[in-house]
This record gives sequence, structure tokens and C-alpha cells, in this order.
Amino acid sequence: MRLADVGEFGLIERIARAAERVSGVAVRRGIGHDAALLRARRGEDVAVSADTLVEGVHFRLDREGPRHVGRRALVANLSDLAATGARPLGFTLALAAPPRLAVRDALGFVNGMLDVGAEHDCPLVGGNVARAREVSLAITVLGGVGRGRALDRSGARPGDRLFVTGVLGAAALARARCERRGGRLRHCPTPRLAAGRALGRSAAVRACIDVSDGLVADLGHLARASGVGAELEAGRVPRPRGFEAACRRLGLEPDRLALAGGEDYELLFAVAPRGPGAGALARRLGVPVQEIGRIRARGLHLRGARIEPGAGGWRHF
Amino acid sequence: MRLADVGEFGLIERIARAAERVSGVAVRRGIGHDAALLRARRGEDVAVSADTLVEGVHFRLDREGPRHVGRRALVANLSDLAATGARPLGFTLALAAPPRLAVRDALGFVNGMLDVGAEHDCPLVGGNVARAREVSLAITVLGGVGRGRALDRSGARPGDRLFVTGVLGAAALARARCERRGGRLRHCPTPRLAAGRALGRSAAVRACIDVSDGLVADLGHLARASGVGAELEAGRVPRPRGFEAACRRLGLEPDRLALAGGEDYELLFAVAPRGPGAGALARRLGVPVQEIGRIRARGLHLRGARIEPGAGGWRHF
Repeated sequence: MRLADVGEFGLIERIARAAERVSGVAVRRGIGHDAALLRARRGEDVAVSADTLVEGVHFRLDREGPRHVGRRALVANLSDLAATGARPLGFTLALAAPPRLAVRDALGFVNGMLDVGAEHDCPLVGGNVARAREVSLAITVLGGVGRGRALDRSGARPGDRLFVTGVLGAAALARARCERRGGRLRHCPTPRLAAGRALGRSAAVRACIDVSDGLVADLGHLARASGVGAELEAGRVPRPRGFEAACRRLGLEPDRLALAGGEDYELLFAVAPRGPGAGALARRLGVPVQEIGRIRARGLHLRGARIEPGAGGWRHF
Repeated sequence: MRLADVGEFGLIERIARAAERVSGVAVRRGIGHDAALLRARRGEDVAVSADTLVEGVHFRLDREGPRHVGRRALVANLSDLAATGARPLGFTLALAAPPRLAVRDALGFVNGMLDVGAEHDCPLVGGNVARAREVSLAITVLGGVGRGRALDRSGARPGDRLFVTGVLGAAALARARCERRGGRLRHCPTPRLAAGRALGRSAAVRACIDVSDGLVADLGHLARASGVGAELEAGRVPRPRGFEAACRRLGLEPDRLALAGGEDYELLFAVAPRGPGAGALARRLGVPVQEIGRIRARGLHLRGARIEPGAGGWRHF
């Protein structure tokens, strides 16, 4: 059965039924109204972030099932909330698709989002469906964050220490493996929501960004937004177990994947010089934390590796 | 200059500069962060609505300049806030476009949205840009609405009187004129935001929806959501001055355009039997108001006209 067979309202009905499995404490009114209604807690601001996946650009249905695409789509959005220190309230989906798309695939996208939404208390509260020549999934996610608790990429100062959660390179390695050896993409990162909220509660944390474009690119964003420079030690960047060997088997450069791979959705953050170290941070955040560099007054310096310039501005030595 | 020449970040920079001309009292943090931050007033819920325009489906750039498309896109979203009785807080834009799109056109879309945003205190606070084969504009708008003040389409009861603001058919006439005679589409409706908020303050108003799909279709949505029927008197549906003559000159059926035309973004609402009449409502809302029918227990009845069944379920007699 194709979208053309059920029409706009038939699809919306099916999406609404599927969405019922994820409730949300913040939801006053969900799908089926002119606008959804969400209630933040007293003293919370509303964090809003939007991200889009386009078929043929951000995913290929011959490489990745629709449910996995849906999972990745919501993870990317939730990661922006994590980097803001916000808790999820709900999300909207603007689904554009050609009439020939199978209803099963359209619901697959949605169910993948709902899988992730169920894990993180983030219900689907509204959106729209539109006819288009290619599939695109435009998600807007809303979160609540206590006033004065929101993290931002712009507060880093020279001397701050740079930390990252988890490991980097796994997403890029999984993508590369699919491209070279075929098979379905199954890797799906976890948005660091609890860690982000914990960082928001610490006055020593001066800036935070999620690693979506790749570590060097995102550190570049953080540095530019803060008006500072940075120094990154490639050798300290945490990688998955067996990463080097797996890269070599595929003929890939481990540094490139770990430093510029992207879509790992770990948190990169700057901590005041006298703030907690990696051990204390890991305990507070409940995830592995590694110190990987330092904020400097100017210039972007990568030590111990050479990679192609990504977002520009990096000096390799 | 094309999008390919300036890249993702070049385009975002230009959009961010353009967006500065519309500030917003609710905005704590706008474009350039992982998430925007908005602050609703104490005691307000957050209303969220999403709508998408796709090139070739909802607009054609040979018929309509990008700025006009942008205007219409935000109006459609703001109208959903109006039908909810909410005030705008801000909007996000997910812009997907092919690399060959002129930067001027991409900024045209945005500037059209900003024109409307400036009129209604609705700043652009975030979003994303993505490469795609066709242009699509996915907007999510956020509003604030006092708790218990939100309008909904589901509260109508048998005996309620049906009213509509303004006139209907103008948007459909303008579109038809363009299609038949050529020339640019210039008609752009106004979202009835102040009227919606006034309706939200009245306990006698039981249900409200904006007329986006066409009067009979949207009355159908309201009736279904309320679990009731309705009776509509075609002869009482308010039309623009000179409408009949203009329709006849183009060989168009005036009833069809006024009753099923769509995109007029007027408010259709149900008022308790002892509630205010059209005159009192018009004074309160500050816009023309016309009584056009009544809520019944069941069935959808159109009196005084025959039109093609739109959203289904209508009995013509």
C-alpha cells in the first residue's frame, strides 16, 4: 500500500495511532489539533532545535531501513537538546514524500523516531505531511531547561580544559563499513541528555556543543562562537575498542574518522581551569569523560595528527 | 550567486543577518546555537504547529516570487496559532534546496517570512539548511497561550452557532486568476491572531479552526473532532466585494471558491447558543464576523448550494 492509496489524512491517522505509544508528561494536547500544547515546568525556558534528513543526501533506503533512519533523525535533534542541557518535551515531524512511497516505509520512519522518543520521554506531538519528489524528514524538537541552566557554545575562555564524553569515530566507521562492504547500517548513537543536564548544573562548565559535524569542525564552531582558539591533542581523543585495527582492515585512516567523522553525538565541553577533572566529571555525568585539549586565546592547533582541513581555520603541525 | 557558491554556513550567516531585523521579546537565544531559547510568560503553555510548502506542489517560482512564497508560508503557520488563541513566540525554518538555487531566492523566502514575522512579533530563531533536489520550506511556529485559554476544534455542541471572520474565496480567486490569465500571485491573507486571542478569552466560544483547506472541509474537521454534525447556509457565507462578477468573468463558480477554495485563513468558530451574536463578536474581535450556520447532532448539511464533495461526508441538498 502506497501513500497515494491512503491519502494525507489516512497517513496522519496511522501516524497518530502509532504515536500514542509514547506519552509525555509535558503534553497537554498532541496530534490532531491546529497546534499542540506543551507545558514546561515553572522557571523553565523552552529550547527549540530543528534538523532535517533528506533521501539521497543523508540516507539511502537501500543501505538503511526506514526505522533506522527515523532513529538517527530524532537522535540528531535530541543531541542538540543535550548540548543545551535541556530535557525533551516533545517533537514535531514534517514528513515530505512522493505518493509512491510505501505506507509501511513512512510508518517505519515514524516508528524509529518513536523508539528513540520512548527512550527519552520525547513524544511526537504534531507536524504535517506533504507531497514531494523525494523523502525528507524535518524534525523540530522542544525541550525545557531551567533559567540560567542552559549550556551554550559561546562561553569558553583561554585556559579552559576541553573534555569529550564517550568515544569518537564509531559512527564514521560504521558508515564506511557499509559503503565498502555493503550490508545495512545498524549503528545508532545515544544522545547524551542526562550528561548534558548534569553539565548545565555545574558553574565550572563554560561551553558545550555536540559532536555532529566531527570533532575538529565542532571544536571550530565552539571556538568561533566563544571568540577564542583551541588546541587539540589527537592522541588523547577516545576511540572505540578495536578501532585502529578495524580501520586498517578497511584501509581507513583512524585519525580522520575519530577527529572528523561526525555523527557520534558525544558532548564536547570546556571547563574552567579550577573545575573538576575527567574522573570527577565522569562520575557526575555517568558516562566516560576524557580530557582532550585546551582553550587558547587564538588559533586552532591540532597536535599529533594531520587531517584534511574540515570547517577551516585549523593549523596542522 | 548560487547556494553551491556560499555553502551551508555561508547561507546560514546570511539568513542570521537578515533575521536580526525581527527581534522578539520571548527570545533568550536565537540563531547560531545548538538550540534556540524562548521564554513564555508565567502561566502560559507553549503552542507548536508545523507546516511545509514544497516547490511544484504548493508553489511555483514562475508564478510567484520567493518573497511572496515566504510570506504565505509563515501566514499558514501563524494562522494555526490564531486558531489556538496563542500569541507568537518565534519560528524555526528547515530550508531544503538544490545547490543551483540562487542565494537571492533563498534569502527571498526568508525575507518574506520575516516581513510577516515583523508584523506579528514572530522572529526567526533557528532551523537548518539541507541539500535536496527540490525546494521545501518546513516551518515550525511556537506560541504562548494562557492555561485554559487555548482554543480547540473539538468542543462544539449541537445548537452552537457557527461564525466566520472576514470574507472567503479571495485566495482561491487570486490563484485561479493567475492560472488563467498569467501574472504573479500577489494575494496574501492575514492571520487572525488578535481575533483568535479574543476568542480564547470568551467562555462562550466552544470550538475554533482556521479555514486553510476550505470552509466545508474545515467545518468537517471541526465537526468530526467535536463528534457532532453541522449545517451551513451557503448564502450567508461572506465573500469579497465584486466577487460574483469577478468569478463569472473567469468562468468560475463563486460558491465553489467561497465554500471550498481554501487558504483564506479566516477563523471558523462555534459559539454557545446564548453567547454573543455577530455584531458583538465583531466589536470584540475587531474584524467583520458573520453567522453562517449551526452545529447539529449529526450529519453535514449544506443549504443553498451544491459543490463537489471535499473532505467527504457532506450531504448536498
